[in-house]
Amino acid sequence: MSILGTMQVCQVGLVVHDIEKSLDAYCEVFGIPRPPVRITDEYELTRAVYRGQPTRGRAKLAFIDMGQVQIELIEPVGEPSTWKEALDEKGEGVHHIAFVIKDTDQVVKDLAQKDMPMVQQGHYTGGMYTYVDCVEKLGVTLELLENFKG
Amino acid sequence: MSILGTMQVCQVGLVVHDIEKSLDAYCEVFGIPRPPVRITDEYELTRAVYRGQPTRGRAKLAFIDMGQVQIELIEPVGEPSTWKEALDEKGEGVHHIAFVIKDTDQVVKDLAQKDMPMVQQGHYTGGMYTYVDCVEKLGVTLELLENFKG
Repeated sequence: MSILGTMQVCQVGLVVHDIEKSLDAYCEVFGIPRPPVRITDEYELTRAVYRGQPTRGRAKLAFIDMGQVQIELIEPVGEPSTWKEALDEKGEGVHHIAFVIKDTDQVVKDLAQKDMPMVQQGHYTGGMYTYVDCVEKLGVTLELLENFKG
Repeated sequence: MSILGTMQVCQVGLVVHDIEKSLDAYCEVFGIPRPPVRITDEYELTRAVYRGQPTRGRAKLAFIDMGQVQIELIEPVGEPSTWKEALDEKGEGVHHIAFVIKDTDQVVKDLAQKDMPMVQQGHYTGGMYTYVDCVEKLGVTLELLENFKG
């Protein structure tokens, strides 16, 4: 059984230096209207934790729907984050593949037991995200998205 | 209109150092039966061209079905290839996202005009693949898959 409770990749996330420039290129190649760019919430709302420490690291985000899979463009802003770390270390490229899951605590625990540690976690309106460092095992970071009910 | 004639990502391809070890991890995390590992055909069949030169570069491949999207694991073997280049330069990680397209020559021409040059092309039984270097523009290499009819 899948530790994540799902096999369905819902998103491929890329870190980029200049989200407006990257969006230009995506819109040109795929002939799509320009999606809006938004910035992640401030720490008071996200309560973001990066490598065990609270972080004010933020990011500009844009989402491009490509059928089942969404492309997420991420331009890191400010303080440390998994996004900034990836961009600094490897340059532009795919940072994560994402899955919608149900029980973040259990999944994080199960992955940690297999040497895949949580690297960043935070909240957004209606849910929470968790990045798990699976680069050594799976070649890519996993993002776990849990949307709260009600 | 999409230059590719499609928006649907069909595959996310990762380069890895040891495909058997990576497969172990994927099977463990996603609770799936182990897919077979095969090796790309020899040059006499693939007629592979890498950066304008014929190449005997090959790769071990494994495919994992994740709903609409397939994860492709790629372990480069031997001579130069886009796979080996990516692994040498950036380490393990996502190499490409793939799309099934219809007219490779036209799409390659249209992308080249927008400064996204073809980097590798080759044949497999029933079709051909083309990698286009879109790293600078889109943050990732695109793979164009064209399956021949009949």
